[in-house]
Amino acid sequence: MQQYRWTQRARDIQPFHVMAVLARAQALAAQGHDVIHMEIGEPDFVTPAPIIRAGQAALADGRTGYTSALGIPALREAVAGLYASRYGIDLDPRRVVITPGGSAALLLISALLVDPGRNVLMADPAYPCNRHFLRLVEGHTRLIPVGADTDYQLTPEMVEHFWDPQTVAVLAASPSNPTGTLLDRAQLTGLAEVTRRLGGSLIVDEIYHGLTYGCDAVSALEVAPDAFVLNSFSKYFGMTGWRLGWLVAPEAAIPELEKLAQNFYICAPHMAQIAALAAFGDESMDICEARREAFHKRRDFLLPAVRELGFDVPVTPDGAFYLYADTSAFGGDSAALCQHLIETEHIAVTPGLDFGEYRAAQHVRFAYTTSLPRLEQAVERIARGLQSWRAC
Amino acid sequence: MQQYRWTQRARDIQPFHVMAVLARAQALAAQGHDVIHMEIGEPDFVTPAPIIRAGQAALADGRTGYTSALGIPALREAVAGLYASRYGIDLDPRRVVITPGGSAALLLISALLVDPGRNVLMADPAYPCNRHFLRLVEGHTRLIPVGADTDYQLTPEMVEHFWDPQTVAVLAASPSNPTGTLLDRAQLTGLAEVTRRLGGSLIVDEIYHGLTYGCDAVSALEVAPDAFVLNSFSKYFGMTGWRLGWLVAPEAAIPELEKLAQNFYICAPHMAQIAALAAFGDESMDICEARREAFHKRRDFLLPAVRELGFDVPVTPDGAFYLYADTSAFGGDSAALCQHLIETEHIAVTPGLDFGEYRAAQHVRFAYTTSLPRLEQAVERIARGLQSWRAC
Repeated sequence: MQQYRWTQRARDIQPFHVMAVLARAQALAAQGHDVIHMEIGEPDFVTPAPIIRAGQAALADGRTGYTSALGIPALREAVAGLYASRYGIDLDPRRVVITPGGSAALLLISALLVDPGRNVLMADPAYPCNRHFLRLVEGHTRLIPVGADTDYQLTPEMVEHFWDPQTVAVLAASPSNPTGTLLDRAQLTGLAEVTRRLGGSLIVDEIYHGLTYGCDAVSALEVAPDAFVLNSFSKYFGMTGWRLGWLVAPEAAIPELEKLAQNFYICAPHMAQIAALAAFGDESMDICEARREAFHKRRDFLLPAVRELGFDVPVTPDGAFYLYADTSAFGGDSAALCQHLIETEHIAVTPGLDFGEYRAAQHVRFAYTTSLPRLEQAVERIARGLQSWRAC
Repeated sequence: MQQYRWTQRARDIQPFHVMAVLARAQALAAQGHDVIHMEIGEPDFVTPAPIIRAGQAALADGRTGYTSALGIPALREAVAGLYASRYGIDLDPRRVVITPGGSAALLLISALLVDPGRNVLMADPAYPCNRHFLRLVEGHTRLIPVGADTDYQLTPEMVEHFWDPQTVAVLAASPSNPTGTLLDRAQLTGLAEVTRRLGGSLIVDEIYHGLTYGCDAVSALEVAPDAFVLNSFSKYFGMTGWRLGWLVAPEAAIPELEKLAQNFYICAPHMAQIAALAAFGDESMDICEARREAFHKRRDFLLPAVRELGFDVPVTPDGAFYLYADTSAFGGDSAALCQHLIETEHIAVTPGLDFGEYRAAQHVRFAYTTSLPRLEQAVERIARGLQSWRAC
């Protein structure tokens, strides 16, 4: 019997805690139970019809070969056009790198900016894969605990305080996963200034742009043209399974990124790139805006409802489709609470532990990626689940 | 003006030399010149119609969301079925990991097996991205010069000789890119035995399986069930632009690979996974076999033709769609020869430097991914180009 030796890296990267919840949810569903999924980080809508039709047409046209590593020129131009129409920014299409999902953008950035032993500053809580990309390239993450007092976002003072000689970049997210909070223009400007002054790069994850409620998100590129900004067709455009995203980078970085992309993934899926051209058309945008409105309604229902139940959500999340809720009022460990909710009420929720360390055991993340009627059912079940939890 | 600091990694990874040829080819084509492409590593056929139809149907069915990181169960089973029908191997579908291209399989393997400072043994010449994945994770490549005497393949003696305390694995390729040569059963058995005895892992790139001429390739899994075997839908099944591959790994590695896949790319494109189910049907397999026959005819034309021109191809390449040709008879540097051929005859060829160091400046790679009539034209032009080269 062969003895396998995995890397320290593989041992350090932990499975997501939600996977245990998911496995249990699947087992319960297989037994015929009705599970309500509030753990899923993807829209519950299929891709808008115009994009699907464009994908089918691309296949009919035989667009099945490799593209250039940076993406097809028409899509790079269309993405630049989005920056003009949405943010009023004149962006050179050559600065747009089309990637196979936001994931690949994080891979490229990590490979380009983070030498072994170097670190990147990041909020805690944050999207967990970010730190695992740094682990992949033998870099480090400096997690900065953030709370309601700063909208769960980094501040220039924090960046200044946590910066050390090994720090090369700051990674922020607006809207944030898991907290749904935004960085406004002043906050972004502050982060850009301090990062530039300290000699590092500002990286902003704008993957949930477009999914903001009652306001629009400011792009880091409006105040920091030298920032690295990553985005995706997954969330607002409902294209998760196509694996398509983009990265806007400083012009000087593009030849480097092209080289890395050629080596690490060759290109993003060709038919997805063609299909995504239809994402910016009026018909698709109307569908996406209607979905945004649906998410808005869900948030407006779910947020007061979970607050009513006793969860603390001190900052109203203006974007994404998540509530990051403090479970302190119920005592115990939030992972145990998640386990209790799936077992007793068949409600799947993500434990805070998946997003960092800081007060993670006192938080859960609710995703409102399910219909309003289902969310209403969910709230009833959670109420009942909390009663039995308290009685434990 | 911001001063950017890229990683040492980014500085170490060089652009492909063929990119200079390609850029010149594009410029010439834009001027109206007729360029013959013999540098391209992808089949000149669109994806077989049954696969395209299945992709369109998947989109019509709204298969646009994420899948599980290891891939949809039906495709993992279908791939296991290919091992039964093609090689007579009973493979547990749970050992099949569906990946976004063979590239992602290399990413997973590198992340799982190669700690910083560790190394992997590899033939020189070989597919260049392999060593860049090791560079990504701060591992090293030990390039082992190979020549015609061992069919450009590693031998157990070489592995034994080059193995050092930091070596963790051997990466072989059959058929090899750029040489097109295969590892037979005895060679694979020898490599598996020595690697196992030395306590490392055997990784075999079988991306060109199916594209062999007058013979079938042996899978490493036939003789080494504990090997890591990577493959792809790109080449034999003509699905390059879909970005879909797979990795067969030891059962103990699967939970680790799942965790890494979740973090690094979430999943392979969903519609591509559904479409690929149609790849194994009779209609698709008939098309793929007909294409294999077309490549066979091209090889049988091009190989004697380039030998006749004075290129030395000492081992008949039995697979892939490449000839790795020694240019010593023409003197000078093969990169300069490539430059000469594109400038004077508009023939694009890949310089040997892209595949390693060992006698790289005395080799070029011809790809026969273009039609027989075009290859005939190409041979005439190369003949003329060699005359003017000699006259230089």
